[in-house]
Amino acid sequence: MSVKKHTISVLVANQFGVLARVSGMFSARGYNISSLCVGETEDPTVSRMTVTVHGDDNVLAQIIQQLNKLVDVIRVEDLTNRSFVERELVMIRVSADHKRRSEVLEIAEIFRGKIVDLDKNTMTVEVTGAHGKVKAFLEMMRSFGIIETVRTGEIAISRAANTAESRDDEA
Amino acid sequence: MSVKKHTISVLVANQFGVLARVSGMFSARGYNISSLCVGETEDPTVSRMTVTVHGDDNVLAQIIQQLNKLVDVIRVEDLTNRSFVERELVMIRVSADHKRRSEVLEIAEIFRGKIVDLDKNTMTVEVTGAHGKVKAFLEMMRSFGIIETVRTGEIAISRAANTAESRDDEA
Repeated sequence: MSVKKHTISVLVANQFGVLARVSGMFSARGYNISSLCVGETEDPTVSRMTVTVHGDDNVLAQIIQQLNKLVDVIRVEDLTNRSFVERELVMIRVSADHKRRSEVLEIAEIFRGKIVDLDKNTMTVEVTGAHGKVKAFLEMMRSFGIIETVRTGEIAISRAANTAESRDDEA
Repeated sequence: MSVKKHTISVLVANQFGVLARVSGMFSARGYNISSLCVGETEDPTVSRMTVTVHGDDNVLAQIIQQLNKLVDVIRVEDLTNRSFVERELVMIRVSADHKRRSEVLEIAEIFRGKIVDLDKNTMTVEVTGAHGKVKAFLEMMRSFGIIETVRTGEIAISRAANTAESRDDEA
């Protein structure tokens, strides 16, 4: 039994209840979803779900097979063994009065983050990155006192190299 | 009947199937979810879901009441009538050979985006922003030929001003 992190990209038709059906497919098999994003695509009738899960490869293969049978599922891709770019967006509010403001700003700049809100006693910083970078950033913020954290969960896009062949055909 | 966009933040216990139960609550009432993000919080036993929906206020009030009754739901907040910062992350791959590369780069810089992948014929750009900014960016990218778009859906954090009172107490 091989347990690892999987990143699954699912294209679905925008139908009532598709999200409940897809996420139910994982939970019915005792597979816990670590993060999930559903966003629009260029086609307003289609959404893309990005799901990250930790679990056994064989069970996941079964789930993917089942997902493919759902009427509203257009395509399922397991990106795990492919080369892809993963990114997550996090907004975090920390305690920071005027004495600590420049310290927060410095860390935000190092992580290429942006200040999105500010008042006398707090700062809210937005950062994007792969899981490890976000983790390191949150670790640095902890010493200020975290008031609130909101994360999107990861999205992933396959690297250009994966699709080079099809693009060469087009060119 | 007043139909508008609502942004709902739901803190949930990390239990099997909680995502299916929460999203099922919306679809059972014919309420379509525009976007949904589930991400970790500082507490590993708790996740935060951010849901954006378009629909009737009264029906939504009922849904929130029902959500509050779910065992795994810790807190539900409708941010709609409060002051909040909303952000979405999008990664987009467009066709761009060496002749058009600087043009894509220029637009990415204007939108404070980052190039996350590149090959001979394509560029992948990451941008964050509120819905309107992301929409304007995608509009600009369309002329290059969009190969793939992946979006997180929106997350939201209430503005510091909303919590000023409680923070004054702490200070």
